[in-house]
Order: sequence, then structure tokens, then C-alpha cells
Amino acid sequence: MKVIVAQQCGFCHGVKNAISMAEKILAKEKDVYSLGPIIHNKDEVQRLAKKGLKTVNRVEEIPSGTVLIRSHGAAPEQMAKLKEKKLNIVDATCVLVKRVQQIAAELERDGYKVVVIGDENHPEVGAVVGSCGETIVIADESDLHKLPENDRLGIVCQTTQSPQYFSKMLCAIAKKGFSELKVINTLCKEAIKRQQSAVELCKQVDVMFVLGGLESANTHKLAELCKKVNKQTFHLQNWNELDKNILPGKNVVGITAGASTPEWIIAEFAENLTAKD
Amino acid sequence: MKVIVAQQCGFCHGVKNAISMAEKILAKEKDVYSLGPIIHNKDEVQRLAKKGLKTVNRVEEIPSGTVLIRSHGAAPEQMAKLKEKKLNIVDATCVLVKRVQQIAAELERDGYKVVVIGDENHPEVGAVVGSCGETIVIADESDLHKLPENDRLGIVCQTTQSPQYFSKMLCAIAKKGFSELKVINTLCKEAIKRQQSAVELCKQVDVMFVLGGLESANTHKLAELCKKVNKQTFHLQNWNELDKNILPGKNVVGITAGASTPEWIIAEFAENLTAKD
Repeated sequence: MKVIVAQQCGFCHGVKNAISMAEKILAKEKDVYSLGPIIHNKDEVQRLAKKGLKTVNRVEEIPSGTVLIRSHGAAPEQMAKLKEKKLNIVDATCVLVKRVQQIAAELERDGYKVVVIGDENHPEVGAVVGSCGETIVIADESDLHKLPENDRLGIVCQTTQSPQYFSKMLCAIAKKGFSELKVINTLCKEAIKRQQSAVELCKQVDVMFVLGGLESANTHKLAELCKKVNKQTFHLQNWNELDKNILPGKNVVGITAGASTPEWIIAEFAENLTAKD
Repeated sequence: MKVIVAQQCGFCHGVKNAISMAEKILAKEKDVYSLGPIIHNKDEVQRLAKKGLKTVNRVEEIPSGTVLIRSHGAAPEQMAKLKEKKLNIVDATCVLVKRVQQIAAELERDGYKVVVIGDENHPEVGAVVGSCGETIVIADESDLHKLPENDRLGIVCQTTQSPQYFSKMLCAIAKKGFSELKVINTLCKEAIKRQQSAVELCKQVDVMFVLGGLESANTHKLAELCKKVNKQTFHLQNWNELDKNILPGKNVVGITAGASTPEWIIAEFAENLTAKD
């Protein structure tokens, strides 16, 4: 069995930075909290929990100490609460995610109705929404009714979405009608390269494994794109989740992984596959 | 035979204004020139020629006197030449067309690459192109290769195009990729209403006549939209062009007309149809 790992996959700069910041603080401090899971990967969250990182979902759950803002960012409202509690804030928000928040706020200041294309329930989108007074989140065509008629729309996109999805939603918005559109391309170029790399690999393999947390938006997007090209695509969190009955008859196997999937999960998966051969 | 004239058709505000300005000047002056045909309608140009309006295509052809800038506008370069010649300039540029020129110049000043969606050979588009240092005209998908990669694009549209065409071209541009899009909706609302009114009428008639000059972009657009709904659509300049063999068996006849088609051409056509019955 030939095992090919996508040229570009696994931790992105933003995630690497957040993990490294967490490890540095954990090495010298005791009370370290992450506001929401540091990344959408259970295994990595568990690994850091063993080193002392406490994951909480609300500011109210943090009594004192240091709070780490994960790469998805936090809404200004949450940041204000953290400051009020006089906690030591370590901000690991991805620079690209922070840029979306800033752009959205600027668009609103310039009089545009802010439109965020993406998943309303994703923390990154939540933080962008929190950066503005009023926003409209468009996840798909069923949300188009939320748009005002003939208005000035300032549009940004969740960083980990695909260019195909972004332009499809822009088309739908343009067709609905507007007086002015200001659209800033806020897609993460690294995420796009991973998507392209995964789709390319997909075409050459008998089966494709997309490794990553079930709550990871970018892993879902990778799996979705791969499935369009190769129906034998499986989104798994790790080696344990693999149904070994899939393997017989498969000569070439592809592996890719989301931006929040640690290197050790990818390596373990690839090594176990090779060993089974 | 039932003859129905579209509720909204014929001269638009911009054209009405240009004709009325021409008539006022012709009433008191002798040397009156129009830089390019005042409107894209041969019959109306001839009517005004009889009153003394001389149509020229180049500034160099005007020795002295008054020059009328038609509703399509003129490029700043031409305006400068006219001023240099110390001609008396009467500007009948449609306010919406002038707005497109101003917006395009502003977009360029703000660092955007200016993109004009429309027909490169139409004088309105020519005047917009002339208002900027550099522009890219996109008429259809075959022009997309002209767009720079990952750039900041400032987009306007020829005023008389349809919203369907505008959004279709925006989709194509969005799919091509960009770093920022600033799109100003420069479509003429009156033109859109005429298009809607024509399409509605089309559905109720056995045959549809779209009256207007063969060089009139908005008349072409009307005919194109009507043809999609009713194959029995004919673009004619006037009553003389009608092939009378079309009429037998037609019970309900629809008439619409471009923004540069004078009322008397529409009335003549409708009256002759009714008289034939």
C-alpha cells in the first residue's frame, strides 16, 4: 500500500503560534485558562490539559490567573470582561482573524451594512460579529432574505472557507441587488493552498482520509471538497476511528489534515497504515 | 387586433433633456454642433438636422459656435479640446452617466483598478474610460483575462445594461479572484423599469415590436430580454421597416421602445397598426 500525505496539511501558522504560546505560559505559570478549546482538536486539547491548561467556555468561570485567547479570537465584549476582571490576557488570535474583525469594524464605521459570509456558530464568525454593532451572517442562500434592499454592503468571509464558496455566495448577494458592494477577500491563503493540495491528492488515490476534529470548520471544508472529487473520502479524528474494513483492495491511500490537527496524529496514522501493509 | 404599448418606454429623462436643450439653442443660434449623433435614433437626428443641428464626429470638424454634449457624455480629453477652441459648450450629459464618470475617477484616485462592465464601443463607456488614466472594459467572459490577479478592483457598469447581465459579470469577476472589490451599482433605474415593463408585456402578446435605433444599446438590450420570453420579437427602427407578412393571425401586439426613441415614432407605429386592422 502506498501512503501519500498531502504536501500542505496540518497546523497552520495561527494554530502553531497559539500552541507554542500556551506551552510557554504553562511552563512558568499555574493558573492558565483557555477561553473555549484552544483548537478544535480533542486529542491536542487533552495533551495540553495534562500540562495544566484549563478550558472554560465563559469568562465567569475564570477566578484569576492568565487567560489565553485562542487563534479564533474573542469578541470585544469578552475582552472587556476579561480586562475588568484584571486577568492576565495572552492574545493568540490569528493575525488573519484579527484582520477580519478590524476590517468589519472599519466597514461599519464607513457606513456599510456588514455582511459576514460563513458559519454563524463558528467562534471566528462570532468574534467578527462581536466586533460590530450590527452584522448579517450569510451561511447559504436561505439567509439572503436577511439582506436589506438596495443598500451599501460591506462584505467579509470566514478565513477558512473555500474560494468557490465565497464567490458562490457573492454571486447570490449580487443577484439580490445592492447600491454598493465593498468586498474584502479575507480568505486565508494557506487554507486555500491546503484545499488545492488535498483536491490534487484526491485524484491520485483509492481512498482519502481527512484527519481533524469534528468541530473543525476547515477540516470539514477539506472533507467536503475531497468528497466532490473522490467519493471514498473519510473524515476521522484519529487512527482509532478508522474502520479497518475499508482498507482491503486499496493500493494508494491519501492523507490530509485540518489546520488544527497536530503532526503526531498525522504521523501516527501514516505509520500505522504502512505497518498494516 | 389589440395593440398594447408598454407602460414605460420611449425617451428617458436624459434624452428628453438633451433634445429640449438642443431645441432651445437652435431657436436662437445658427452654428450649433452635436459631438456625435445627439441620440442613437436616425429619424430624430434628421428632424433636428432640419432645424439646423450639425452632427460631427470629431472636435476638429467644429470651426466655431456652440457645441452640444449629448446625453452619453464626452471624455475629458474631448472637453479639454473644446475648451481650448473656445467653443460655447452646452453640456447635456445625462446626470447618471456623469455620475459613472465621477465614480470611476474617484475609484482610481482611491487606488482601485477601474473596471467598466459594458460595451467598449458605446460612447457612454468611451467617456467613462476617458475619465480615468487606465481602465479595463469587461463586455463578456472572454474579457476576463484582462483582469489583474489578486488586485483591488473598482467596478462600475454601463447605465443601460440589465441587472441580470451586471450580476452575471460580477459573478465571473468574483470567481476569477481578487483582493478587494468595490462595486457601485450605476445602472439606470428607469432603464430597469423599462426592461421589466417590456418583459411583462411580452408574456401577454402574440408578437412584440421593439422600436429604436440599430445603434441604441438600450434598445438592443430590450430586444434581447424580450426575445428570451417571446421568440416573436422584432427590433425595428420605424413603421417602414415592418414586414407586414408578420401580422396575419396575430391578435395581440405589444410595442416597446428604447430610451432614444421619440414619441412620434411609437405613436405612428401604434396608429398604423390599429388602422390596418
